[in-house]
Amino acid sequence: MFTSGGDSPGMNACIRSVVRTGLYRGLDVYGIMYGYDGMIEGTIKKMASHSVSNIIQRGGTILKSARSEAFMTKEGRQKAYAELTKLGIEGLVAIGGDGTFTGAKVFFEEYGIPTVGCPGTIDNDIYGTDYTIGFDTAVNTALEAIDKIRDTAAAHDRIFFIEVMGRDSGYIGIECGIGGGAELVMVPETRTKIEDVVKSLKGLRKTKTSSIIIVAEGLDCGDAAQIMERVKASFKDEEKEFKVTTLGHIQRGGNPTAKDRLLGSRMGMAAVEGLLAGESNCMAGVMNDHVVYTPFADCITKEKPLKSDYLRLQEILSI
Amino acid sequence: MFTSGGDSPGMNACIRSVVRTGLYRGLDVYGIMYGYDGMIEGTIKKMASHSVSNIIQRGGTILKSARSEAFMTKEGRQKAYAELTKLGIEGLVAIGGDGTFTGAKVFFEEYGIPTVGCPGTIDNDIYGTDYTIGFDTAVNTALEAIDKIRDTAAAHDRIFFIEVMGRDSGYIGIECGIGGGAELVMVPETRTKIEDVVKSLKGLRKTKTSSIIIVAEGLDCGDAAQIMERVKASFKDEEKEFKVTTLGHIQRGGNPTAKDRLLGSRMGMAAVEGLLAGESNCMAGVMNDHVVYTPFADCITKEKPLKSDYLRLQEILSI
Amino acid sequence: MFTSGGDSPGMNACIRSVVRTGLYRGLDVYGIMYGYDGMIEGTIKKMASHSVSNIIQRGGTILKSARSEAFMTKEGRQKAYAELTKLGIEGLVAIGGDGTFTGAKVFFEEYGIPTVGCPGTIDNDIYGTDYTIGFDTAVNTALEAIDKIRDTAAAHDRIFFIEVMGRDSGYIGIECGIGGGAELVMVPETRTKIEDVVKSLKGLRKTKTSSIIIVAEGLDCGDAAQIMERVKASFKDEEKEFKVTTLGHIQRGGNPTAKDRLLGSRMGMAAVEGLLAGESNCMAGVMNDHVVYTPFADCITKEKPLKSDYLRLQEILSI
Amino acid sequence: MFTSGGDSPGMNACIRSVVRTGLYRGLDVYGIMYGYDGMIEGTIKKMASHSVSNIIQRGGTILKSARSEAFMTKEGRQKAYAELTKLGIEGLVAIGGDGTFTGAKVFFEEYGIPTVGCPGTIDNDIYGTDYTIGFDTAVNTALEAIDKIRDTAAAHDRIFFIEVMGRDSGYIGIECGIGGGAELVMVPETRTKIEDVVKSLKGLRKTKTSSIIIVAEGLDCGDAAQIMERVKASFKDEEKEFKVTTLGHIQRGGNPTAKDRLLGSRMGMAAVEGLLAGESNCMAGVMNDHVVYTPFADCITKEKPLKSDYLRLQEILSI
Repeated sequence: MFTSGGDSPGMNACIRSVVRTGLYRGLDVYGIMYGYDGMIEGTIKKMASHSVSNIIQRGGTILKSARSEAFMTKEGRQKAYAELTKLGIEGLVAIGGDGTFTGAKVFFEEYGIPTVGCPGTIDNDIYGTDYTIGFDTAVNTALEAIDKIRDTAAAHDRIFFIEVMGRDSGYIGIECGIGGGAELVMVPETRTKIEDVVKSLKGLRKTKTSSIIIVAEGLDCGDAAQIMERVKASFKDEEKEFKVTTLGHIQRGGNPTAKDRLLGSRMGMAAVEGLLAGESNCMAGVMNDHVVYTPFADCITKEKPLKSDYLRLQEILSI
Repeated sequence: MFTSGGDSPGMNACIRSVVRTGLYRGLDVYGIMYGYDGMIEGTIKKMASHSVSNIIQRGGTILKSARSEAFMTKEGRQKAYAELTKLGIEGLVAIGGDGTFTGAKVFFEEYGIPTVGCPGTIDNDIYGTDYTIGFDTAVNTALEAIDKIRDTAAAHDRIFFIEVMGRDSGYIGIECGIGGGAELVMVPETRTKIEDVVKSLKGLRKTKTSSIIIVAEGLDCGDAAQIMERVKASFKDEEKEFKVTTLGHIQRGGNPTAKDRLLGSRMGMAAVEGLLAGESNCMAGVMNDHVVYTPFADCITKEKPLKSDYLRLQEILSI
Repeated sequence: MFTSGGDSPGMNACIRSVVRTGLYRGLDVYGIMYGYDGMIEGTIKKMASHSVSNIIQRGGTILKSARSEAFMTKEGRQKAYAELTKLGIEGLVAIGGDGTFTGAKVFFEEYGIPTVGCPGTIDNDIYGTDYTIGFDTAVNTALEAIDKIRDTAAAHDRIFFIEVMGRDSGYIGIECGIGGGAELVMVPETRTKIEDVVKSLKGLRKTKTSSIIIVAEGLDCGDAAQIMERVKASFKDEEKEFKVTTLGHIQRGGNPTAKDRLLGSRMGMAAVEGLLAGESNCMAGVMNDHVVYTPFADCITKEKPLKSDYLRLQEILSI
Repeated sequence: MFTSGGDSPGMNACIRSVVRTGLYRGLDVYGIMYGYDGMIEGTIKKMASHSVSNIIQRGGTILKSARSEAFMTKEGRQKAYAELTKLGIEGLVAIGGDGTFTGAKVFFEEYGIPTVGCPGTIDNDIYGTDYTIGFDTAVNTALEAIDKIRDTAAAHDRIFFIEVMGRDSGYIGIECGIGGGAELVMVPETRTKIEDVVKSLKGLRKTKTSSIIIVAEGLDCGDAAQIMERVKASFKDEEKEFKVTTLGHIQRGGNPTAKDRLLGSRMGMAAVEGLLAGESNCMAGVMNDHVVYTPFADCITKEKPLKSDYLRLQEILSI
């Protein structure tokens, strides 16, 4: 078992669940440190029940994580396979996102070690599961920050552009927009133009004294600071104050929420029980509250669309 | 629109959504203060968009809530109907739990004012929705408290009995048990006996130095303090320290989580759009992430069973 | 170095500081587990800089704590001295409260090992320091809980009696009262009578719809539940709802606040530097923001009075 | 009474205290909206006890704040005086920072209305008080963010540069550095050079896998992003990952901590009682836990040096 790619809150709950479900089912369980790099280097340790005591509530990952370049080479993977064989490891649980599963798929296809993935990323951008481990915590962390910013926005009648994470996906953005009571949300899926933002803000000015605009990272029209400057240029002769805040890495850390502890725990159990039941080359996920297994190939290539009713809800609530 | 029964975090998000969806759809929206009592007394005020500004992040309910005895009488309901008629109110949104819907059902059957309910209670004990508004916040609040208690439990190698809310339902208990990494969970559905608790704790003693037992309120075998005393009696000659904490009303308050703000917002919109589409005498809910409407009669009488795989998950993870 | 008595948030910051200041000054540093019991049993381990990495933000104590009966006997202390001598330990840092220092004083007088104490208790009841490590966190934890309860109190127009910790001292109570905007505070120092509470509440009824009364534990007139019952009896014919909540052990745990991390860090350094400078049989403390050393004898016997201007402030603000 | 300049958590506690102390002493109390601008425009409202109910726990300021250019002109101040005279206002309480007091001083010298200030700013950069209202909350907010970032820093063995607020003062920086267990702190007072940072990090690499560097805003050597780039350039051939996060405006908002609620409450009372006792043209502050009044002239011009023992403490603890 290992964690790879960006860490996310709830990964420790998942690790704990893999260990304890494995032990409960009579298996030996090993933890691989530093993702694929540790697999290659052989930094692998046997896990006992108490190895995962008192970690369910902690952010980060006790197995540490890394992005591995060595694993992208044939030699790297061969070395990794040798290390696993040395310890008699017969199945793998890979906790991470797209990149993690891409590596796992190649490795499985080359060496045939049964592998099940668990969706660990804050971005909620993985096909095959309604939610990823860490997403709920990231949204709640962002919302707490937005609540604080709203205090100061309201006190000064300011317009705040707040940049949240999400890579190619607008999930964090739209949930922060609805939950944060934002006046506007700019996510990749909405393709909002600068002129639309200006128009909206000019319309809102009659009823609202302060405004919050949620901006997802990685938009075509720039980052939050660039967007703010362009919007501000259209308000030149007016006295509105514009401010920008980029929430950044705080969204990755912190104690996991109830939902992420539960999801991490469920996914860890599902991965182990899946392996025992013959599942492989696939990811465990939760859809409509049921555990499902989706081939890595689909997880990597298929897109998970944003819920259109969320966009509509956000629009109505911002009047 | 009104809130009734015990308040829950996310009710304000729901109120805001009812107001803004109503206005968006061209309706006049009124807020009834103090639940059914306010309907009888006529403490009803017209709501504008800004009436619900800056409340989505707040616990409690700006409409205040109460349990009404007067509404249980024919005279009370007649007076309420008169007040509603006076203002030309043609539809009702009732935010609350079982008791609220029982009153709404009777009132609808007597006077025929179209009524849709929103599930607002921390207990998650209502048939017709996967989650109720406030449940996620209550679990997260309880978990934060449990995390704190775990600090002191671990520092002293103590056994802690922690009582959580939930009335007749074990939902809060089981999610706190899994998320809090509890060694044991006692909820109405498990019918755990004192001797089972003693046996489990004696078994765990070999591997664990401190333990947390989550106790739902309202068990047949007593409250957390009584259970602790009885368990303690079986450990008489040993040196373990037993402690009890009842989390109490902190679980009802606090800023709503992302999930509860989103759920409250969705339910408020669903109630208004349901009324406009001809739904009545029913509750809006979310099942498998879709909005559904369930007759009040079913919400009140049918039972929502605890998920059996959660119980199994908790058991495996506590080894 | 060891922690003893009830644990408090910031103890880990203090432990970290003792270790790193000691190493910085070229000393060998040992951590004694489980307080005096561990000293007797010899569960003592050498500490490196990384032994205390990533703990400054955690509640509890990594050295664990216990109340020791064995240390109250001459034999126990003799055994403890033997264990310390075996390792060549030439100075002690005792982190805890009254009971800890009483033991340290006796031990010093019998065996002469230089000892400096650090004030670690949430109660802030120790003479010789303006604040104790853990007090600020406990007050903030209690306040967050009170804020949540206020949500539900306001929603239902209820009167809430909230019991906070503090043993014989009203410090937690009065700071919670002022910070929580309480209508009334009952602490040992005010000797408030039930009839005064009734009178106040009847007076407040004209202007306030909900009320919060902070009750310190250990009052002569009973615990919060008993006081509530007696007050309620005087309101018999009225419709006010009375509720009670006992915050309990959540006040002991949780991540320490900035103040407690800073205070713990300062006290740890002060203890080590005090020992090196020849201080002994005394406690390091902070008075008027300066480090001072006070003989254990004074810390144990002298009383720290509540600030009278805080009581006056609370009274004025509750109008 | 009014708030001016940047808002800070605890301002509402201060406003509440001014209102209630004033009423308690038999005065009429008015709240001026939007700082000096509102004074000029006459947006002033009479305050009752319930006007400040349920605000002690909220960030921001219910009186709103602004920086006024009009008040810098003679005409503006004349108009303001006229508005105050119209209402018979005989004394002023000015809550804010340097800029606020500069305006208040000029206004007092021109028109003679007795004025007392309360130190409301998160930066803790005002002479005449040990702490300013909002500072403790800002540090705690920053620390919570740093704790989250540490989770992800530790999971990936990264070096994080975190920029905190503080304008010309290193108070927020140094307290975040100690409390956050940072490896290095760069504040205006330390004049740290890039080469020192590089040297420190190279030294630390042997013992630490991840590192946190706290960077105060407004340093001569650039902002956190610029500093990171320059440091990174010296590590070119190595594999360390460098990241930067700017905490930004979240530090201004949020529910005030216990300390800031208490300090705000004390300062509000001190301002009103100071006015009644004949104090004027000065700021109320707390030094060594006693209320003191310092002439505006000193508050504005004198410097408050950083505590040198904090710098030493931080250095020792980062080994």
